[in-house]
Amino acid sequence: METKIPKLAIIAGNGSIPFYLVEECKNKGREYCLIIIDGHAKELSEKYKPDFIVSLSKMGKAIKYVKKLNIKDIVMVGGVERPSLRNIIPDLWTAKLLAKLNSSITGDDSILSSLTKALEKEGFNILAPENIIPSLLCPKGILGKFKPNKNNNKDIINGFKIAKLVGSNDIGQSIVIENGLVLAVEAAEGTDNMIKRSALLKKEEKGGVLIKVIKPQQDKRIDRPVIGINTIEEVWSAGLAGIAIEYNEILIISFDEVISYANKKGLFIAGI
Amino acid sequence: METKIPKLAIIAGNGSIPFYLVEECKNKGREYCLIIIDGHAKELSEKYKPDFIVSLSKMGKAIKYVKKLNIKDIVMVGGVERPSLRNIIPDLWTAKLLAKLNSSITGDDSILSSLTKALEKEGFNILAPENIIPSLLCPKGILGKFKPNKNNNKDIINGFKIAKLVGSNDIGQSIVIENGLVLAVEAAEGTDNMIKRSALLKKEEKGGVLIKVIKPQQDKRIDRPVIGINTIEEVWSAGLAGIAIEYNEILIISFDEVISYANKKGLFIAGI
Repeated sequence: METKIPKLAIIAGNGSIPFYLVEECKNKGREYCLIIIDGHAKELSEKYKPDFIVSLSKMGKAIKYVKKLNIKDIVMVGGVERPSLRNIIPDLWTAKLLAKLNSSITGDDSILSSLTKALEKEGFNILAPENIIPSLLCPKGILGKFKPNKNNNKDIINGFKIAKLVGSNDIGQSIVIENGLVLAVEAAEGTDNMIKRSALLKKEEKGGVLIKVIKPQQDKRIDRPVIGINTIEEVWSAGLAGIAIEYNEILIISFDEVISYANKKGLFIAGI
Repeated sequence: METKIPKLAIIAGNGSIPFYLVEECKNKGREYCLIIIDGHAKELSEKYKPDFIVSLSKMGKAIKYVKKLNIKDIVMVGGVERPSLRNIIPDLWTAKLLAKLNSSITGDDSILSSLTKALEKEGFNILAPENIIPSLLCPKGILGKFKPNKNNNKDIINGFKIAKLVGSNDIGQSIVIENGLVLAVEAAEGTDNMIKRSALLKKEEKGGVLIKVIKPQQDKRIDRPVIGINTIEEVWSAGLAGIAIEYNEILIISFDEVISYANKKGLFIAGI
């Protein structure tokens, strides 16, 4: 029996995008190998046996493995928990990377984007999830059957500017705004926690809009903002009126499920 | 017995500054009348019998009362909960004010500063708490016996810029930052809640700095940011390294108590 050489390496952290990528590869008959970052993506690990599990501090091993398989295309995707740099004993490849970073690591962004640059120097092509599945990107316009009202529309315009400002300063990607008042700004706590908080802060029974944008400096191939069914469930639980997300920039996981949930609950979803 | 005419009207919301103002008036023998905004300042109400309790929607009554007492100087201070505008039945004076605001009310700032402007047009002098008690303003420099370390200092410089940016967009006054990463940004939830959240997000055992600044557009007479013993207790509970606040702009309530608590717990406090 001839061993098949996988053509795409999926380096996976947390979240559901890796599931879609694996399924897409299976459906399209595209060969792949699945590399999971140690301590992440437990369910993925259980569902699809990973070909390789690698610690963030031992990326050199993953590189060696991928090279041996003659793979050029890598998609690196999913949330990665910021490692405490104190207890890391890196392998040589990672040590060189860290030396180059020269303690400039701050947000998750910079870890992953430095890793991306280093992988490119090794001759790899770093692909984005939407290169594999273009339908993941949020389209433009009103996506479900409900529309933002006049106040929501004002909040969307105003909130979009604020979210971009917050993003361009590398603080976070999303905010909740109600009648001109910013209720919550996401920093390190994650979108879902921020939405939960906004429930306690809003005034209208059904008010407030979640705005989510991409940070201008974000490496779009590895770190696009994502919404999924859990996001819209949180939005519903918090009593918000709807969601406005940056079209062509944000990934929507399980698009049909998200839209039908929004339609059922009376929430609007806008690609802006 | 001759009735004494109070010379200073203290219009009080929540918080401890009104206590200090009343005590200062008593100590200095300055005549005052205490007006409490309905639904606020319960402890104050219990400790010092208010001369007048007024609903935010019936400010006209308070104006009439203050004018009758021949008072020109007003200090308006303390947190005021953002009223739901839906259930308000304003008196004539307040109705005119609201008409002028023309539904432009967004943050707490705009309610109070519009009220201030309206009171000035009526001929009142709106004083700031520090006009009555100058020692409330945060001085410059290291205020206790502990100093920020090198990383803290970087975070203070970087965080100050971010906090000012967040403030200048009317989002909030404070952030928590650790090793260059913004852990939390305050919007409508208040400083204490934001500090609590940062405890779950920080990486170092004793890391992260609370930065608090004044918003550039804030009316300093009625709405200066404040820190007090509860702030520094929260900072300690959250395991942060210290506090950096804008000198000459932020009020420190119970200065000696705050500094001695910080000294006992090993926290730094810097006026920046």
